[in-house]
Amino acid sequence: MKVMVLGGDGYCGWPTSLHLSDVGHEVVIVDNCVRRTIDTELSAASLTPISDIKERIKAWREVSGQTIGFEYGDLLDWEFVSEVVGRHQPDAIVHFAEQRAAPYSMIDRRHAVYTQHNNVIGNLNVLFAINEYVPECHLVKLGTMGEYGQPNIDIEEGYIEIEHNGRKDTLPFPKQPGSWYHLSKVHDSHNIHFACKIWGLRATDLNQGVVYGTVTPQTERDPHLVNRFDYEEVFGTVLNRFCVQAAIDHPLTVYGNGSQTRGYLDIRDTVRCIELAVENPAERGEMRVFNQFTEEFSVKELAEMVVESAGKLGVSARVENIENPRVEKYDHYYNAKHTGLLDLGLEPHYLGDSLLDSLMNVAIEYRDRIDPDVVMPSVSWRTGKARRRVHKAPAEPSTL
Amino acid sequence: MKVMVLGGDGYCGWPTSLHLSDVGHEVVIVDNCVRRTIDTELSAASLTPISDIKERIKAWREVSGQTIGFEYGDLLDWEFVSEVVGRHQPDAIVHFAEQRAAPYSMIDRRHAVYTQHNNVIGNLNVLFAINEYVPECHLVKLGTMGEYGQPNIDIEEGYIEIEHNGRKDTLPFPKQPGSWYHLSKVHDSHNIHFACKIWGLRATDLNQGVVYGTVTPQTERDPHLVNRFDYEEVFGTVLNRFCVQAAIDHPLTVYGNGSQTRGYLDIRDTVRCIELAVENPAERGEMRVFNQFTEEFSVKELAEMVVESAGKLGVSARVENIENPRVEKYDHYYNAKHTGLLDLGLEPHYLGDSLLDSLMNVAIEYRDRIDPDVVMPSVSWRTGKARRRVHKAPAEPSTL
Repeated sequence: MKVMVLGGDGYCGWPTSLHLSDVGHEVVIVDNCVRRTIDTELSAASLTPISDIKERIKAWREVSGQTIGFEYGDLLDWEFVSEVVGRHQPDAIVHFAEQRAAPYSMIDRRHAVYTQHNNVIGNLNVLFAINEYVPECHLVKLGTMGEYGQPNIDIEEGYIEIEHNGRKDTLPFPKQPGSWYHLSKVHDSHNIHFACKIWGLRATDLNQGVVYGTVTPQTERDPHLVNRFDYEEVFGTVLNRFCVQAAIDHPLTVYGNGSQTRGYLDIRDTVRCIELAVENPAERGEMRVFNQFTEEFSVKELAEMVVESAGKLGVSARVENIENPRVEKYDHYYNAKHTGLLDLGLEPHYLGDSLLDSLMNVAIEYRDRIDPDVVMPSVSWRTGKARRRVHKAPAEPSTL
Repeated sequence: MKVMVLGGDGYCGWPTSLHLSDVGHEVVIVDNCVRRTIDTELSAASLTPISDIKERIKAWREVSGQTIGFEYGDLLDWEFVSEVVGRHQPDAIVHFAEQRAAPYSMIDRRHAVYTQHNNVIGNLNVLFAINEYVPECHLVKLGTMGEYGQPNIDIEEGYIEIEHNGRKDTLPFPKQPGSWYHLSKVHDSHNIHFACKIWGLRATDLNQGVVYGTVTPQTERDPHLVNRFDYEEVFGTVLNRFCVQAAIDHPLTVYGNGSQTRGYLDIRDTVRCIELAVENPAERGEMRVFNQFTEEFSVKELAEMVVESAGKLGVSARVENIENPRVEKYDHYYNAKHTGLLDLGLEPHYLGDSLLDSLMNVAIEYRDRIDPDVVMPSVSWRTGKARRRVHKAPAEPSTL
């Protein structure tokens, strides 16, 4: 199949592009590479040294013989979006091309506006391009488990049957997102649902959990194929961040009492889930929803696992409970369904010793690249303003 | 109280500003008057001749002795929003300043993007301004009953208690909005809910039904105070449109079989509901939701009432069922709760003969201003493109 990967230069997008290419799909990456600009803004580079997108694609051709296409451009630019979608005529569009860090969206007003504008309008342009040029195309859109929040009932996959005053209906699962970023994904889900209803588009909304890891079988094949690994407080996901903290003898910073529970998955499962969604498209008119994670952990449990794993490598790690910059519940009920992707054939990589060892080894290997100044939280959910100075959000339209 | 009315030059905003001023509040209107620009774009003026905002305010001072302030500017302009909110220090902000026509948002991609960008980002700026400059200020935000769609269960006011697999929680009522415009209001509701949660803002989200009428006791006091009356297919609400169609001997165009049922209210109740919300603020941290309508009707029922009312004035009206440009259910269950505003003291003006007579009289009085070319639907929900040529949406940022 011809698969267009929007955001194919990013943390999940790049290994997904390699994986889809490896299993035989024709891949075209679309990216404005803004994630690299944000590294500059935050003065916080990937722990792993990453090559630029052209070097990446060249290296992949050399090791695999496969060609990945690349289109440089911004989803806010309709002329660009309509031209590339119309010219390439993809069978599926995998859409990772959104600002994806909750803390980034919480830095201040500019970053909140940047996140919702970039994500919501970019996604609208994708929907209109599909409707106009490739109405049969299957949109595989990355959402987040964070859309659901922490309800006191089981979280279903996208929809819930509600019985109320003696009547029944199956309705979108109520959402209680916890950041301006998470809200942007909720807005996207509503917009996509509507486009499927009125135009008969086909879409899969993948509510992904927190991703950990950095290596896939493809990224290991050449140094230019290495994937990014974020460890700072804004883009670093929690398990990756803990491994880096252990490697530099920094306490593992658990926010609050650490009882906050979420769904997690290995990046090797991310790429496989996308493959499964692409190869099993939704029906016309359907917005199918999968909860894309494999295991639930509390932050405290993850910290304890890292302490144990680090100990085996001779690193003595310790946990420190710090003030929680976020607004979230502790000691809450959390039970989220995630059977859709398993039914399609997902065989999870569960978090175990070998993965933790490999993550710790990545952190130790690149220890001299770690900047200890960027691991502590500076962005507060409660004030609307970051405590440290952050540069202007990139690419914000002049009218905002 | 000092009340800032965002969008105070519009169909609901203007009579609300007059009413709040009349009952003794200090009113400041904030508007970029874009609704007047859209009249030019659509070549479809208000049936009633309306004065410009400065004439309106001057006339009100002359007849009432009260001064209404006016600030010209755009909510997308943060410098403007922060400056006026900071300087005026309002006790309440009533927010009507959004693109409010579903068909306008459905014209094409540009209009969809304009609507969501204008509404969602403008509202975000308002939230950030309140948090920064007037955290005690009560946001009274206009939503729409159209956020709920047509579920097969009773529609509650904003929240619903769900029992699921033996557990219970009270969650936001699931939304199934029916246009890019309605979606923008759902996005707003989620954003406001979050701002109340993290910053402790206070807000009332008023999910308003379809408004009919044009006259309030204040707008009658001087010709310069006359309110707008839209009758064309894009901004004209259904009952106003039917009266105009009857006046020019055009069939009353019922979309589909006319069984679509919605909540409706008289514009005199709109202004009173806003007063009640303003004078009874939500608590800090609370997003209170009221469903703001007084009666439910099907489109068919409204058409029949207009036929009868027209007949009494010697006008022979007839109904024509035409292809429905929208995507919506027929013969559906519809039962929406609306007790919150009644509990605060609302005494509804129910739709009856005298109101219908007065609406028919407005239509007949201005019959020579009616353009019959703009009453038939040209905007289709199914194609993503209007059938007739529509000019570019105004004020769209150049990057989109």
